Amino acid sequence: MKACGLVVEYNPFHNGHVYHINEAKKVSNADCMIAVMSGTFLQRGEPAIIDKYHRTKAAIKTGIDIMVELPYPFAVQSSYLFAKGAILTLHKIGVDSICFGSESGDISPFIAGYETLTQNQSAYKKQLSIGLDEGLSYPVASKKAYQEIGLKPNQIDLTKPNNILGFSYVQAIKDHQLPIEPFTIKRTNNNYHDETITGSIASATSIRKQLLQNNYSADEVDYTIPVETVHQLKEYKQKATTWHSWEHYFPLLHYRVQTMSLEELSSISGMDEGIEHRIKKTARNAASFVDWVSKIKTKRYTWTRIQRIFVHLLTNTKKSEMQLLEGISSVPYVRLLGLSEKGQEYLSQQKKKMDIPLITKLRRNNHPLLSMEERATNAYYSVLPTKNRFELFKQELYGPVIEKK
Amino acid sequence: MKACGLVVEYNPFHNGHVYHINEAKKVSNADCMIAVMSGTFLQRGEPAIIDKYHRTKAAIKTGIDIMVELPYPFAVQSSYLFAKGAILTLHKIGVDSICFGSESGDISPFIAGYETLTQNQSAYKKQLSIGLDEGLSYPVASKKAYQEIGLKPNQIDLTKPNNILGFSYVQAIKDHQLPIEPFTIKRTNNNYHDETITGSIASATSIRKQLLQNNYSADEVDYTIPVETVHQLKEYKQKATTWHSWEHYFPLLHYRVQTMSLEELSSISGMDEGIEHRIKKTARNAASFVDWVSKIKTKRYTWTRIQRIFVHLLTNTKKSEMQLLEGISSVPYVRLLGLSEKGQEYLSQQKKKMDIPLITKLRRNNHPLLSMEERATNAYYSVLPTKNRFELFKQELYGPVIEKK
Repeated sequence: MKACGLVVEYNPFHNGHVYHINEAKKVSNADCMIAVMSGTFLQRGEPAIIDKYHRTKAAIKTGIDIMVELPYPFAVQSSYLFAKGAILTLHKIGVDSICFGSESGDISPFIAGYETLTQNQSAYKKQLSIGLDEGLSYPVASKKAYQEIGLKPNQIDLTKPNNILGFSYVQAIKDHQLPIEPFTIKRTNNNYHDETITGSIASATSIRKQLLQNNYSADEVDYTIPVETVHQLKEYKQKATTWHSWEHYFPLLHYRVQTMSLEELSSISGMDEGIEHRIKKTARNAASFVDWVSKIKTKRYTWTRIQRIFVHLLTNTKKSEMQLLEGISSVPYVRLLGLSEKGQEYLSQQKKKMDIPLITKLRRNNHPLLSMEERATNAYYSVLPTKNRFELFKQELYGPVIEKK
Repeated sequence: MKACGLVVEYNPFHNGHVYHINEAKKVSNADCMIAVMSGTFLQRGEPAIIDKYHRTKAAIKTGIDIMVELPYPFAVQSSYLFAKGAILTLHKIGVDSICFGSESGDISPFIAGYETLTQNQSAYKKQLSIGLDEGLSYPVASKKAYQEIGLKPNQIDLTKPNNILGFSYVQAIKDHQLPIEPFTIKRTNNNYHDETITGSIASATSIRKQLLQNNYSADEVDYTIPVETVHQLKEYKQKATTWHSWEHYFPLLHYRVQTMSLEELSSISGMDEGIEHRIKKTARNAASFVDWVSKIKTKRYTWTRIQRIFVHLLTNTKKSEMQLLEGISSVPYVRLLGLSEKGQEYLSQQKKKMDIPLITKLRRNNHPLLSMEERATNAYYSVLPTKNRFELFKQELYGPVIEKK
């Protein structure tokens, strides 16, 4: 069986994702579709709107055969480490190809861009550092540095989030010389960050915004998401009492910052260059999460960077723990979140070839990354009423979701 | 002006406390009544039902002239350190005497008990340690050790909480050779821990129980508390939206334990003998605060001891910070919470004689103990809605309450 891998967040799973799965199947000619998904907290430093199991169920019912988890320390990271964790995971589960969405739908500028960048790595870093020192924001400094080393904007625009991610996937494959063929398809939907819905294929950002604003009802967005997503959103709200947004975590975060010393704050992953002073100072009159981040934000400290720091603070993730990832060239395990019947068939063969454990249930002390995962999941559910929290956490212990299509 | 000191918690301020003030005034023949009070968290390891300022207001209106704060690290402690902090504070504000309630109302057995104990200190400690190793609870082991060194139960029963506290006050005065005369009056009210109200003088425990059970109404207990307490209870509920009980803090505590490593837990003050393992393990199915403590409780780990650990966990108080108290023979400052006109008159003279700062407003970096106090206050208010939390915290910055009687 040929397998194609997708790197996803499905926050929530929408029509654009269905399109992506179908197109990826065509271009890769794969029999089995495998997705690696961030669990509780996402790449841009946000809690997922519903938990990983309910997102998994919607995806398995609608085209994904196997869903595996991107471990927390890779998930809440800038694109390079995020992509590295995702690609190394997909490699271990044996994908022959990957397929990602891009602005152009053409893979060649990604390959050419990789060649240019590897040949000019140190020059790029130097230019980036100069740009940042001049007070430019990270994306602008990065774009300027790419231009300086000869990467032309018409080849590949590395200021677009999807191009950056795609480029990072290619980079991870090439850096580790993995036997994975990269494909890309042209994105049809709105821009990544678009906040308004204009058709049946809309950005996840705009769908989330609608979901959280409209009195937590899925009715306004049901033409942009598969029926299975509507079903899972409703089921999750019933089990959890709410969907998740950063504002739910604001009192917890605020309490944490006000009872931690500056020294303790500075031990948290991502807390660099003295930002802890700014976080502590602004806590005194932060009226909400959004208000707080807007008070901390500077050119250098982008919204996303601050949100990632807040995720690590909430999950109590230390700089010292993130050192586990340094120089890593393989993932220590693959954790299964869900699978279809075809996925089961694929795994019965693939399992024999795997040289690392395939984890189906969360157990204690299996691996430091798994205990970080457990902490993250506990932090994620911590804003729910006790009874609901315990009930939902059980899935972490029971193992993967198995669904017939 | 002659001043008499009282060591109090006023949780809440009730008729028994009014009786105590009046009797103390008689026996001490003092002009000015000064109380030292625990702020946000109390000696038995509990959040105060309403904040320190509202408890202060009720007391100032009803007989206390000056209210000062017992610093957090002394407040949430076993009787020895609690009494030491209280007596050293009262000494600095210049009291000539103190007066406490006891079972007998006779001071002589306290003095005699002190003599016996100081002469047999090491024998007492040895016997106590033997008892604990035999698996006896702390109070039982302590009672047995007192008997072994010749302290007769008919002299002074040191298993009664009020006698233990009274004894500790005498001990602190004598140990530090302070010019303070100790008085005691016979307690008229119910036992300290009584849970039912049987008359107009009832235990604070029974009053709190009624207040928290009866849909948070003060109407059922108004014949056991002065009208000013009724007024302050109502005012606080309006400002804060609720009164405080441990259950409000359960989700925060639970979140903390589930996102902290065993190593981090063991750095918290009071976390000894591996209790962190038991706390972590029982967290997995603790349905409420009361349920959790009952699952942790052993003969050696009494309810109070566990509650104190939980307070330190909530306020993020480390063992290393508590080392500040070791061998301390003076308090570094006195913090004023409130005063009457007579109190102002007394202080205008007393201030000149004081060799340590009289703090009226919480400022940053004044003293490590003050920043612990600020953390404790932030943790205390953290369960309230954001707006209410900020509004109430302002009093910490504005300074003491000044009331006409």
